[in-house]
Amino acid sequence: MNESRPPVSFQPPSRVLLGPGPSDVSPRVLQAMGRPTIGHLDPEYLRLMDESRRLLQQLFRTENEMTIAVSGTGSAGMEACVVNLIEPGDRMVVCVNGVFGGRMKEVAERAGARVVTLEAPWGETIDPQQVAAALESYDDVKVLGIVHAETSTGAHQPLEEISRLVHDAGAFLLVDAVTSLGGMELEVDAWGIDACYSGTQKCLSCPPGLAPVSFSARAVERILGRTTPVQSWYLDVTLLARYWGSERVYHHTAPINMSYALHEALTLVAEEGLAARIARHTENHRRLRVGLEDLGLEYIPSRSLTTLNAVRVPDGVDDARVRRRLLEEFGIEIGAGLGPFRGQAWRIGLMGASSRRSHVTLFLAALSQLLADERAH
Amino acid sequence: MNESRPPVSFQPPSRVLLGPGPSDVSPRVLQAMGRPTIGHLDPEYLRLMDESRRLLQQLFRTENEMTIAVSGTGSAGMEACVVNLIEPGDRMVVCVNGVFGGRMKEVAERAGARVVTLEAPWGETIDPQQVAAALESYDDVKVLGIVHAETSTGAHQPLEEISRLVHDAGAFLLVDAVTSLGGMELEVDAWGIDACYSGTQKCLSCPPGLAPVSFSARAVERILGRTTPVQSWYLDVTLLARYWGSERVYHHTAPINMSYALHEALTLVAEEGLAARIARHTENHRRLRVGLEDLGLEYIPSRSLTTLNAVRVPDGVDDARVRRRLLEEFGIEIGAGLGPFRGQAWRIGLMGASSRRSHVTLFLAALSQLLADERAH
Repeated sequence: MNESRPPVSFQPPSRVLLGPGPSDVSPRVLQAMGRPTIGHLDPEYLRLMDESRRLLQQLFRTENEMTIAVSGTGSAGMEACVVNLIEPGDRMVVCVNGVFGGRMKEVAERAGARVVTLEAPWGETIDPQQVAAALESYDDVKVLGIVHAETSTGAHQPLEEISRLVHDAGAFLLVDAVTSLGGMELEVDAWGIDACYSGTQKCLSCPPGLAPVSFSARAVERILGRTTPVQSWYLDVTLLARYWGSERVYHHTAPINMSYALHEALTLVAEEGLAARIARHTENHRRLRVGLEDLGLEYIPSRSLTTLNAVRVPDGVDDARVRRRLLEEFGIEIGAGLGPFRGQAWRIGLMGASSRRSHVTLFLAALSQLLADERAH
Repeated sequence: MNESRPPVSFQPPSRVLLGPGPSDVSPRVLQAMGRPTIGHLDPEYLRLMDESRRLLQQLFRTENEMTIAVSGTGSAGMEACVVNLIEPGDRMVVCVNGVFGGRMKEVAERAGARVVTLEAPWGETIDPQQVAAALESYDDVKVLGIVHAETSTGAHQPLEEISRLVHDAGAFLLVDAVTSLGGMELEVDAWGIDACYSGTQKCLSCPPGLAPVSFSARAVERILGRTTPVQSWYLDVTLLARYWGSERVYHHTAPINMSYALHEALTLVAEEGLAARIARHTENHRRLRVGLEDLGLEYIPSRSLTTLNAVRVPDGVDDARVRRRLLEEFGIEIGAGLGPFRGQAWRIGLMGASSRRSHVTLFLAALSQLLADERAH
């Protein structure tokens, strides 16, 4: 218990957040977050929750009543979706083409699912024919889990055909939309998604700490009909529903100030308009892509997200040195490669408030200078 | 998807938080929380984590390396402690004398524990002889869980003798310190606590959203020796340790701004000094107790916490009306009774920044006026 060094208030350095999240947070959201805390059963707070739910429904493009923010980061959202939908022994198909599909498999196994994995090479997407074949081989599939926007590879997964196959087989579709919600097209109702989760620190440009989730009425019915309790008390949707619903039964103390931040972030989305926001993400992605390709960089995924750009580290370039210099000399954070892409990939996020032309311009100019230095090295 | 009402920024009302949590948050903590978000792998953020861990160790009065903040509210801390220590089929004794012991039983059952419950009437504490008898009856007890500060009843549970019994039986002691950490004496090392969890929104006067936890070296050894994976991926301490440790392996995106707030709250504790802070809580509790008893109110627990005061609603007084008038006319929040105390108890928290003389004075004066009105009703 070393009490020698007295602590001092933390002053974060100035950063341009172009990594895989968190993204830049708007001053309005920061300001909202710093407003005085009130009680989680205060009538004014309950009003805030109701309005946030309405805004989340617009964002997810759904009428699902069970659309809430789970009190944890995106991975808690993943776990909430899996442990509520899965009972021990249930068959679940998990599509794995990067870190987050792999994580979903791990979470499903820990929930007692009998997991069948469908794999695609990192950077590629899952082919609907793989899904069709799996649903052919196993007649007891309860849930298929898939990642819409794979943050580790930048791959953009089409979902509509897969959704049709999953529903034809009588199964439930669980979708990871952590890096797409609020930045790319995502249609929970129109695409027939039964459970969808995201995080606040990506395209919503809110600090990390909440996980927006949405469950279809059909999924809720399945959850209410479980014969075993949900293994997690904290993430049990049937209990959370009683707090978010009109009963207002105390479950756990909601992260009040994070909820202020999310509400303000959702307000900003509503002000901009979801379609305009998605178009902005597309436009800045194109600007970045042209610039990166001009610098000789190559995109990894065959079908790239607009929110996250994964490119190969050029031969002869020191991955870590470039990232360190970007951070130290320009205040720019980008992401390193994960897993098999370690040392091989850069992941450049243009999400939410970070998806802006001036950031693209600054980043390309900075990278150009550093790559010239690398070549001279 | 009703898009008619345009959202507006949320402006919380002015409140004096004298409920069971959240407590008033210092402007310095709010300011820290609103500072710009940086990345969860940023060297500056990692430095903040290291310093926060050191401050948490001082607060828990422990040298435990595995002392961290779990990314969820206090109940996530409870679940983290239980699911890491328990493997399916393990015998766990859970002491229940209020809501939170009951919750621990529920969490333990969902983790597959064979639970033995020791009960005491609400408001009373668990007698060490009950513990001794249970440990006599069952020779396979792995973990005993108990609530140090029962927020639903205001009862203050002594732990030292129980700890000795638990360790003599070769079991592990798991303690809920949600409402005591940072406000009352709590000695993780000296009392031999193996796993301890708390929340940020009580005596630390930080917004809710993080759960400080501490595991003894012995508990960590047990967790590392598990034969089954921890059922929760999100709360798996072995994975969290690799992010908090020198390896810095990415697990999930930490709630950055909540960590700023916690760091600032811990800084405030260090500035005040833990002993002085505990003395302040004792002093304001005494002031309140004298005032409440002067008003004819009766404390429920035989041994009261200094952080949370549970009193009986006097006969002929309308519980809900008084609480509503306190909120609407004075901006004061107090807590209602839970479970069997519904409509029967008021819970008045004096925690962290809310434990101040002027709040005690205001509350007693306001309550006195409202009780006079009730009697005239």
